[in-house]
Amino acid sequence: GFPGLPGKKGEPGEPAFRYRSAFSVGLASRPPAPNVPIIFTKIFYNEQNHYDVTTGKFRCNFPGLYYFSYQLTVYLKDVKVSLFKKDKAVMFTFDQFKEQNVDQASGSVLLHLQAGEEVWLQVYGDGEHNGLYADNVNDSVFSGFLLYHDADQF
Amino acid sequence: GFPGLPGKKGEPGEPAFRYRSAFSVGLASRPPAPNVPIIFTKIFYNEQNHYDVTTGKFRCNFPGLYYFSYQLTVYLKDVKVSLFKKDKAVMFTFDQFKEQNVDQASGSVLLHLQAGEEVWLQVYGDGEHNGLYADNVNDSVFSGFLLYHDADQF
Amino acid sequence: GFPGLPGKKGEPGEPAFRYRSAFSVGLASRPPAPNVPIIFTKIFYNEQNHYDVTTGKFRCNFPGLYYFSYQLTVYLKDVKVSLFKKDKAVMFTFDQFKEQNVDQASGSVLLHLQAGEEVWLQVYGDGEHNGLYADNVNDSVFSGFLLYHDADQF
Ligand SMILES: [Ca+2]
Ligand SMILES: [Ca+2]
Ligand SMILES: [Ca+2]
Repeated sequence: GFPGLPGKKGEPGEPAFRYRSAFSVGLASRPPAPNVPIIFTKIFYNEQNHYDVTTGKFRCNFPGLYYFSYQLTVYLKDVKVSLFKKDKAVMFTFDQFKEQNVDQASGSVLLHLQAGEEVWLQVYGDGEHNGLYADNVNDSVFSGFLLYHDADQF
Repeated sequence: GFPGLPGKKGEPGEPAFRYRSAFSVGLASRPPAPNVPIIFTKIFYNEQNHYDVTTGKFRCNFPGLYYFSYQLTVYLKDVKVSLFKKDKAVMFTFDQFKEQNVDQASGSVLLHLQAGEEVWLQVYGDGEHNGLYADNVNDSVFSGFLLYHDADQF
Repeated sequence: GFPGLPGKKGEPGEPAFRYRSAFSVGLASRPPAPNVPIIFTKIFYNEQNHYDVTTGKFRCNFPGLYYFSYQLTVYLKDVKVSLFKKDKAVMFTFDQFKEQNVDQASGSVLLHLQAGEEVWLQVYGDGEHNGLYADNVNDSVFSGFLLYHDADQF
């Protein structure tokens, strides 16, 4: 007899963007303790839970290039913070406070991370530079996201 | 008879960034009216027209995770703005102005949006905090883009 | 005869970010010369070498939509910078300095670029606005990355 009809078409392939990692968190209690990771507990986004709200550290799960960004309200005292990667301060932001002149200090950078490496913000130098402020109508926010994952490693 | 030929191979998976949504707009007329969406009419990028220059609102067309960022020139008066999502202020930025001390205030955050949800900037609190400034050689800019789309919803 | 077997599953979608272009660089020598591209030589990330540390210019290799961001420490003098695209200043950031009141000035924008187009930061106007500062524990950073590439052009 004749051959049967062709089989059904195969399933579509997997969609892109398989690897996602992002967090956006705000300061909720102040002032932050100096020389230890700043703990941000107001959660704007942390679906993958790669930011640990108990330690204040973001942990890289997917090796790749990450973008980090922070905007800090400067009030009552100067602000000097550093972005740490693996126990080393890699970027510094300093903004001085003057009476009746609340300011905003910000930083952003692209960093390549290996799986397991951690990134966090910390008040730098002596403890007098922890003037990061936040309340119900003022924010200090720390965000990060995976921009390009290291495809070859998967 | 013999079985038919195997079916055709399935379609390739969805490519990366099939869904694009991004805008970057600047203040062109000032001062902005308080307690209504700030209208940015200087267009750096708005190819998809998801930012509505008549209402001042960005409208989510593709559910997913979005990054929003703004940098505001603080001149003549204090600046207090809030990023609204669906009629609720979700993030606040405050910067005080002092004579002969123009400042820059900035904010950024990651927010997950459902299709149809709108995001905009608005002067917050009393009307005296609308010191956002812009002219031919000074900018105040509001940007946003789709970072990860919700693949499962397509 | 009977119908054939179903076809094979399709190939995975094109991986995210097949085309990659990103840089993040910091000021290392100061003050920057006015009215020429600012040279950032502290390298946070420049794997593709699309940012030229000898000219201070980022060169677009893949046409598409790019995000640019900078955070500048304002110290000793005022800061007025412009983001240039193809010999034209497209965005301006101004922050005044006051004694004992170090500030942070920032800017960010999305720009569509054609292959070969260059983007850089430059002190704008008279030469007195080059108060960008950086040292071992203070940074001024310029970053950029390809967000969406123009798929149809490949
Ligand atoms: Ca201020
Ligand atoms: Ca200032
Ligand atoms: Ca200051």
